[in-house]
Amino acid sequence: MREPILLTPGPLTTSLKTKTAMLTDWGSWDRGFNDLTAGVCTDLLDIVHGAETHVCVPLQGSGTFAVEAAIGTLLPRHGKLLVLVNGAYGKRMARAVEVMGRQVAILESAEDQPSDPQQLAARLAQDPAITHVGIIHCETSTGILNPLAELADVVARMGRKLIIDSMSAFGALPIDARSLPFDALIASANKCLEGVPGMGFVIARKSALVESRGNSHSLSMDLHDQYVYMQKTGQWRFTPPTHVIAALRAALDQYHEEGGQPARLARYTANCNMLVEGLRRLELKPFLDPAVQAPIIVTFHAPAHPDYHFHSLYEAVREKGFVLYPGKLTQVETFRVGCIGAINEAEIGQAVAAIGEGLHQLGWL
Amino acid sequence: MREPILLTPGPLTTSLKTKTAMLTDWGSWDRGFNDLTAGVCTDLLDIVHGAETHVCVPLQGSGTFAVEAAIGTLLPRHGKLLVLVNGAYGKRMARAVEVMGRQVAILESAEDQPSDPQQLAARLAQDPAITHVGIIHCETSTGILNPLAELADVVARMGRKLIIDSMSAFGALPIDARSLPFDALIASANKCLEGVPGMGFVIARKSALVESRGNSHSLSMDLHDQYVYMQKTGQWRFTPPTHVIAALRAALDQYHEEGGQPARLARYTANCNMLVEGLRRLELKPFLDPAVQAPIIVTFHAPAHPDYHFHSLYEAVREKGFVLYPGKLTQVETFRVGCIGAINEAEIGQAVAAIGEGLHQLGWL
Repeated sequence: MREPILLTPGPLTTSLKTKTAMLTDWGSWDRGFNDLTAGVCTDLLDIVHGAETHVCVPLQGSGTFAVEAAIGTLLPRHGKLLVLVNGAYGKRMARAVEVMGRQVAILESAEDQPSDPQQLAARLAQDPAITHVGIIHCETSTGILNPLAELADVVARMGRKLIIDSMSAFGALPIDARSLPFDALIASANKCLEGVPGMGFVIARKSALVESRGNSHSLSMDLHDQYVYMQKTGQWRFTPPTHVIAALRAALDQYHEEGGQPARLARYTANCNMLVEGLRRLELKPFLDPAVQAPIIVTFHAPAHPDYHFHSLYEAVREKGFVLYPGKLTQVETFRVGCIGAINEAEIGQAVAAIGEGLHQLGWL
Repeated sequence: MREPILLTPGPLTTSLKTKTAMLTDWGSWDRGFNDLTAGVCTDLLDIVHGAETHVCVPLQGSGTFAVEAAIGTLLPRHGKLLVLVNGAYGKRMARAVEVMGRQVAILESAEDQPSDPQQLAARLAQDPAITHVGIIHCETSTGILNPLAELADVVARMGRKLIIDSMSAFGALPIDARSLPFDALIASANKCLEGVPGMGFVIARKSALVESRGNSHSLSMDLHDQYVYMQKTGQWRFTPPTHVIAALRAALDQYHEEGGQPARLARYTANCNMLVEGLRRLELKPFLDPAVQAPIIVTFHAPAHPDYHFHSLYEAVREKGFVLYPGKLTQVETFRVGCIGAINEAEIGQAVAAIGEGLHQLGWL
């Protein structure tokens, strides 16, 4: 009868402390709320050691809104973005650029292969029109970790600017703006920070942002305007999701109490290892090579049984209190299990047991 | 020591029942959550009697995101929008069209004058390039009610399409899609429906929406895609603000229990009358003629005292537990007081007393 545990890449299971932070109504014009916003932005910036070079601009909406806003604001109207694609989120980034009517190119690799720095260098050498490069830090369609530092080095060495979708990695995987050169890094409240969905944010290089006036294709998603207005007034330009921000404040407090990024990474890594080991005993194999697996979400090959249908497994496991996530691959039958959220090895152990029982009931073991 | 009552036009004071609905984490892929979304959309559509002709498309973000999305999706790339402006929200709508690079014109009237149907007819006769007209139902910069039915009649009679920003009126003021011709009507969760901020929605004429494929300037704000995907899967295209939607579900339940639109309008009207009457006794006069005042938010002339500064009044009244709203007029010194939210004459009576005490302390009475 307890509420199900979400083994999904966000929205995910959050702590009760985070949720109860939403029991207050904040006035969006009030000084107390402005302080809340400012504190959240400072903390987000500090997580990536960006205070010297970057600023944090929050945005209403889902993470995809923030990705689109970052590109619309920072890619000049006559710029060209090369997107490194090895999954659905890379494709989505490229599609966003297409819809806004700017130049875009794709460098695609297989879904089980990380984006390749050498191929990137070759492509940039070939096409001098490319001004910016877009990368997905952890591609949640599979759970693959792309080699951020190596890719960023190539981009910087070849004089281009970098835009990183770090949606599902921010807060857990280490990112250091002092050594990693990027113009924008995008994430959201409801992934590894364990807040609730409703806002994203962009860690933008200040020098790039202040030069970006008039680039945006959209009033609502103009991060330059959002930043300038917030600097002047302390307020969001348009009505902020006040309860979501209060929840993120509470989630960040718990993040610090836990020990910040290293502690969060350690917990997720333990979750991931236990999950992979547990499902291996049920003869369920991970889709990715362990060397490129981020401890965020794991894609598993579906059970080999001819009657397999994800929906049946989903329902059987859900009845036992755990919500799985469908696969997103077109060629191979898979399902996904998230390692993130306010869960630890206790929940992962129970989840493994629930999946085992589900498979047993379905006769697929 | 109680939390302050927000006398603002949203975010506003919501009931505890609405807020506690946010204590559950929903999986965005889960059937239960899909049912929640579908039920909310059905209810929103029913409030304006639109089930036969219109559909409800929810959108992540603030109300402004939904306004921009509605125009971006429903105004063809070579269309032209005439916006009727008598305040900041009309100006903002026109600005959104400008930024997306489409044709826009403005018909402006004074801030204390409702948009005029005869002037509208003359302008439409003059400019055959205008395909769509944008109207602000209740302009919260002053609280003025525009004559929606009369304006809509002119638009329909002259063969144009209507887009209505009904942000601060939806749910309280009567709207009937069976007799009022419009292609889009936009509102948000956190105004007269008394939900929390984080999502807007568009009541779109189905025939117009299905023809709008490819119009949008933005991937995230493409209501055609959002609608098609939701029809197919029951899910939002991108991560939904799950807790915000659960709060809106709870708020709609309370809306129905209270007696729906007529009951809500009656409560807000009583709030408004008591407020105006109470502040009149403190010699504070409303900015608008009572005949054009909507019972949503009231703009008052500032006290005549030479030391008057809004911030001091704000702080004095806030200490007593009530949050006022600044004026938005450039020519006249004003402040605003909202009549909406989970408040009734008890809170309004206390607020009037608090304003009186505040003025007394400041020596401005």
